[in-house]
Amino acid sequence: RFGEVEAEDLVGVTTGLAWTEVGGELLSIEALIMPGKGGITLTGHLGDVMKESVQAARSYIRSRSVSFGVRPTLFEKREIHVHVPEGATPKDGPSAGIAMCTSMVSALTGIPVRKDIAMTGEITLRGRVLPIGGLKEKLLAALRGGLSTVLIPRENEKDLAEIPDNVKRGLTIIPVTTVDEVLSNALVRPLTPIEWTEADAEAADQALSKPADSGSHEATLPH
Amino acid sequence: RFGEVEAEDLVGVTTGLAWTEVGGELLSIEALIMPGKGGITLTGHLGDVMKESVQAARSYIRSRSVSFGVRPTLFEKREIHVHVPEGATPKDGPSAGIAMCTSMVSALTGIPVRKDIAMTGEITLRGRVLPIGGLKEKLLAALRGGLSTVLIPRENEKDLAEIPDNVKRGLTIIPVTTVDEVLSNALVRPLTPIEWTEADAEAADQALSKPADSGSHEATLPH
Amino acid sequence: RFGEVEAEDLVGVTTGLAWTEVGGELLSIEALIMPGKGGITLTGHLGDVMKESVQAARSYIRSRSVSFGVRPTLFEKREIHVHVPEGATPKDGPSAGIAMCTSMVSALTGIPVRKDIAMTGEITLRGRVLPIGGLKEKLLAALRGGLSTVLIPRENEKDLAEIPDNVKRGLTIIPVTTVDEVLSNALVRPLTPIEWTEADAEAADQALSKPADSGSHEATLPH
Amino acid sequence: RFGEVEAEDLVGVTTGLAWTEVGGELLSIEALIMPGKGGITLTGHLGDVMKESVQAARSYIRSRSVSFGVRPTLFEKREIHVHVPEGATPKDGPSAGIAMCTSMVSALTGIPVRKDIAMTGEITLRGRVLPIGGLKEKLLAALRGGLSTVLIPRENEKDLAEIPDNVKRGLTIIPVTTVDEVLSNALVRPLTPIEWTEADAEAADQALSKPADSGSHEATLPH
Amino acid sequence: RFGEVEAEDLVGVTTGLAWTEVGGELLSIEALIMPGKGGITLTGHLGDVMKESVQAARSYIRSRSVSFGVRPTLFEKREIHVHVPEGATPKDGPSAGIAMCTSMVSALTGIPVRKDIAMTGEITLRGRVLPIGGLKEKLLAALRGGLSTVLIPRENEKDLAEIPDNVKRGLTIIPVTTVDEVLSNALVRPLTPIEWTEADAEAADQALSKPADSGSHEATLPH
Amino acid sequence: RFGEVEAEDLVGVTTGLAWTEVGGELLSIEALIMPGKGGITLTGHLGDVMKESVQAARSYIRSRSVSFGVRPTLFEKREIHVHVPEGATPKDGPSAGIAMCTSMVSALTGIPVRKDIAMTGEITLRGRVLPIGGLKEKLLAALRGGLSTVLIPRENEKDLAEIPDNVKRGLTIIPVTTVDEVLSNALVRPLTPIEWTEADAEAADQALSKPADSGSHEATLPH
Ligand SMILES: [Ca+2]
Ligand SMILES: [Ca+2]
Ligand SMILES: [Ca+2]
Ligand SMILES: [Ca+2]
Ligand SMILES: [Ca+2]
Ligand SMILES: [Ca+2]
Ligand SMILES: [Ca+2]
Ligand SMILES: [Ca+2]
Ligand SMILES: [Ca+2]
Ligand SMILES: [Ca+2]
Ligand SMILES: [Ca+2]
Ligand SMILES: [Ca+2]
Repeated sequence: RFGEVEAEDLVGVTTGLAWTEVGGELLSIEALIMPGKGGITLTGHLGDVMKESVQAARSYIRSRSVSFGVRPTLFEKREIHVHVPEGATPKDGPSAGIAMCTSMVSALTGIPVRKDIAMTGEITLRGRVLPIGGLKEKLLAALRGGLSTVLIPRENEKDLAEIPDNVKRGLTIIPVTTVDEVLSNALVRPLTPIEWTEADAEAADQALSKPADSGSHEATLPH
Repeated sequence: RFGEVEAEDLVGVTTGLAWTEVGGELLSIEALIMPGKGGITLTGHLGDVMKESVQAARSYIRSRSVSFGVRPTLFEKREIHVHVPEGATPKDGPSAGIAMCTSMVSALTGIPVRKDIAMTGEITLRGRVLPIGGLKEKLLAALRGGLSTVLIPRENEKDLAEIPDNVKRGLTIIPVTTVDEVLSNALVRPLTPIEWTEADAEAADQALSKPADSGSHEATLPH
Repeated sequence: RFGEVEAEDLVGVTTGLAWTEVGGELLSIEALIMPGKGGITLTGHLGDVMKESVQAARSYIRSRSVSFGVRPTLFEKREIHVHVPEGATPKDGPSAGIAMCTSMVSALTGIPVRKDIAMTGEITLRGRVLPIGGLKEKLLAALRGGLSTVLIPRENEKDLAEIPDNVKRGLTIIPVTTVDEVLSNALVRPLTPIEWTEADAEAADQALSKPADSGSHEATLPH
Repeated sequence: RFGEVEAEDLVGVTTGLAWTEVGGELLSIEALIMPGKGGITLTGHLGDVMKESVQAARSYIRSRSVSFGVRPTLFEKREIHVHVPEGATPKDGPSAGIAMCTSMVSALTGIPVRKDIAMTGEITLRGRVLPIGGLKEKLLAALRGGLSTVLIPRENEKDLAEIPDNVKRGLTIIPVTTVDEVLSNALVRPLTPIEWTEADAEAADQALSKPADSGSHEATLPH
Repeated sequence: RFGEVEAEDLVGVTTGLAWTEVGGELLSIEALIMPGKGGITLTGHLGDVMKESVQAARSYIRSRSVSFGVRPTLFEKREIHVHVPEGATPKDGPSAGIAMCTSMVSALTGIPVRKDIAMTGEITLRGRVLPIGGLKEKLLAALRGGLSTVLIPRENEKDLAEIPDNVKRGLTIIPVTTVDEVLSNALVRPLTPIEWTEADAEAADQALSKPADSGSHEATLPH
Repeated sequence: RFGEVEAEDLVGVTTGLAWTEVGGELLSIEALIMPGKGGITLTGHLGDVMKESVQAARSYIRSRSVSFGVRPTLFEKREIHVHVPEGATPKDGPSAGIAMCTSMVSALTGIPVRKDIAMTGEITLRGRVLPIGGLKEKLLAALRGGLSTVLIPRENEKDLAEIPDNVKRGLTIIPVTTVDEVLSNALVRPLTPIEWTEADAEAADQALSKPADSGSHEATLPH
């Protein structure tokens, strides 16, 4: 059934825990990278705040791309589509921010996301993980969905006192402070930084107004 | 009468089963490919959720284009128009997603869609088929319209218990899990993958900011 | 008086029968082709559904342009303006679709439209003519306006039983199924297909991102 | 006082009679031509219908530009600004159409508009003048404002029976059917057609995607 | 305190008298010129009518730029930002038009605006100054703010009869008919026309689609 | 906890004191500079007035860039993203203007912001600091958040009389009149002007329509 744990580790697919019209719920957040000119498409009946969290995640990734192993020029030469099924359900709020980020990093690098992990947390431009509301409902949804591990914001750790024991026994709950911790927990392989010299950077500046090189092309077609 | 089975297998025309103001109903989903610069036009009084499902279907097709036999560069050199008559009736919801996808793949490849088949199901960016609501009303509409076969989401199979026997006897109902299954059932010929080497991909990257080659031009003018 | 039969056969002007705030009425649908870059302007207090019907008509014409005698490249080098006087009256609905199509084909080819003909019918992307509502009021408007001939959708033929005999005696009513039938009835001369080889098509692909040739220039300034 | 007859014949300024929040009223319609790339700016608290009438007037002028003495290429190399003081008063309706057209033709050709003339009438894409409402109030406004001559639509001639005799004695009322008649009455000099050969037209087609020649530059700075 | 007379004559800063949510009030209208591509940014919680008055002022300046000493090409190579503190207060209406114009001319030429002058008046595309409402409240605001001189529209001269004598004694009130009079009163130095030959104009036409020369660069950075 | 003093001096991060739905509050204002074409992205559930204050701050920085040590050409070659966590909380008003400005200058120059400083004040295009409301609530928030120093507008100095003594003892309160004072207090190092000759300016004018040089590239990637 949809909303349960995936059958395998997938590229560009992360299980988020966020707010929808029907309460805290599992969301399967899909990111796809296509040839293009730097645009971003967001679908799945997303509210303004959720859309803004995708933009924040994207800018954060761009600022860290070299250490994530993604050529900075790729952002000008690819389109990103982030979609959240089920399209009939309105979704909003910032708490899927780190899941949005994880799906995009996975799609950009080709490294799959662990299928048994869920996560919730607002993302900042600096890669901080901010606290969210409704922790209890979200953990219950993760348990029901068959996930084994949940990443939560460090600042929500204090709320664990109110979570029923059976939920805490059924899940590995990992508090995180930064997106780096999120990615090292969620991706099946570590990220490998690339070399990016000042000369590369200058060439990239030039390339913004010219036909550009390709490079890590295979990594961007995760299917 | 419009809303009944077509007289012949057509390129770019699929019978969808979706929600409109007057309930579950047959929709004749038309896709047309024209010379252009990569735009998409959506008409037929479509709500936001239905428009988003076309975008999801289009991105999925782009990510699979090589295995579908469509040159990736084609997406930058063609306009896609998806239209759903009857224009006076408002239509919404994600359940025409796989029919939208089928019409676009048919128009892009020039392979006709079987005239006696209808379908319903939400599409995801990964090509999953998600369950829909109103299965009974949609199957009744298909029966009334003279269709012989209906593709439904695998997750809706459990709802068949509540469908009257005469409806189940009058229709071949095929549960599907992926868009690949949808296309192999709905198109009159199998899709033929093309060769697309890393060198082609690099050339395509270049082509995004230059006048490009043509190629499978004939396939894109289905009339 | 405006709203009556024109004094002569005109290029780019068709009498449509459509819905406005004051009921079924004659509309004088004007299309004008100008040098440009492929844009389309729609004016005359048109609602969303009527605007969508112009877009559907335009895409249909593009997909058939070679058989209509219009170079496909023309769509990238001309602006189309469709205007429906009287600007103070809101107008909506899809039933002027085939009249919109006729005015655009006339303007693109330079072939005048018969001044004594009116028409009503929704258009699809495949050039089908779909049924409309309010047939009786529309035929009465045509009779009052002094038109001699009215094209109606074949699927509305059954509604003729309810039309008063004096109306049916006063008008030649021609049921049509396709836009091809509409154009062969409405234009004063038959359309002449042009030659358009695969080489032309490839050149056109190139031309989309370059300064292009002109060609059938005289045909695009109908005045 | 503003709203009365101008002190001299001006380029790009026409007195229209149209609807505002406070009834039929004199409007001083200003058109200005600037170097640019073909855009149009409309200001003065104009409603959608009045804005559409400016678009219709502009397209009509483009289709007639050679006979009006305006190089067709000029439309791609100039910006048009149409402004209607007094900006605090909302204005709407199509009845300033022919005045909008006259101001733009005057600004494009550099030929002044007669200062003692006012006009009212909807414009069509073919240059027809359609009837308007509120003739009596508009003629009274013209009389109060000190105008000597008013152009009205031929189809409103029948409404003159209801106009008080003193108004008809105080004004020269000229019924018009076409924009050509409007311009020959309103401009202080006749329009002089230019030569525009097929070779010019082809060159113009090329010029749309290239830096273009200048030409009748002086005519476009009416001040 | 803000809202009182400035400490020195500034480039690009004019004291306007206009309508805000809290009545007639002093507004400090700031214009800044930056390198760019011809865009305009308007901030400070401005309503539609006030924004339209900036557009009218800008077009008027473009049409007069040679006599104001501003190269016409500058408008394509600079961005204009007009801002009206205090950003929390909604502002609307056309009566700041001549002050908007004065700030922009000052910023474009580098000539400071007299610090002890305030002004109110709607601007037209021809540089006419139209009357405004609330003259009394505006003059009181000028007096309270410590201004010595106020420019008002000539057509508001008749309203001075109702202004208290102490206000009239405390302020030098100058009625104006044209923007030329506004600028000669408000700027600390006269404007110096530049030479602009037909050859310059032709070169400028070319320059619109090419990298352009610079020229009076220093004048455009007023700080 | 978020909303308290940062652990270290950061590039592109300033603590603002502004209005949100829940009253005066600490906001962590993040600015990030990325390769791009001059765009600006604003996220964090910001109202129109707060967005306008970012635009004003950006234009002010552009007009002062040489004295701030930022090459003017950088604005055309970089994207700026300003984000204000917490994304679920609506924020508005102009009082974060100087904090927005400080974050952007820090991000553009690579000079960190002092972690123990907070600030509030509207910014003008000329770099003036305008007074704000709710001073008491904002100072209390700063004290609670562990900040040591608060910059306030000089015009709010008079409001300090009403602030409890313990608040004034717990905070160093510095009244400021200009953005220059703000930056010299808030940044950990002084700004170093660059040389920018007339020849550089002319080259920059050219560069706007060409692939440009890079230059101070390292300064623009603050992470
Ligand atoms: Ca679910
Ligand atoms: Ca939506
Ligand atoms: Ca139907
Ligand atoms: Ca619609
Ligand atoms: Ca009529
Ligand atoms: Ca409208
Ligand atoms: Ca008036
Ligand atoms: Ca308006
Ligand atoms: Ca004030
Ligand atoms: Ca606003
Ligand atoms: Ca907080
Ligand atoms: Ca928002």
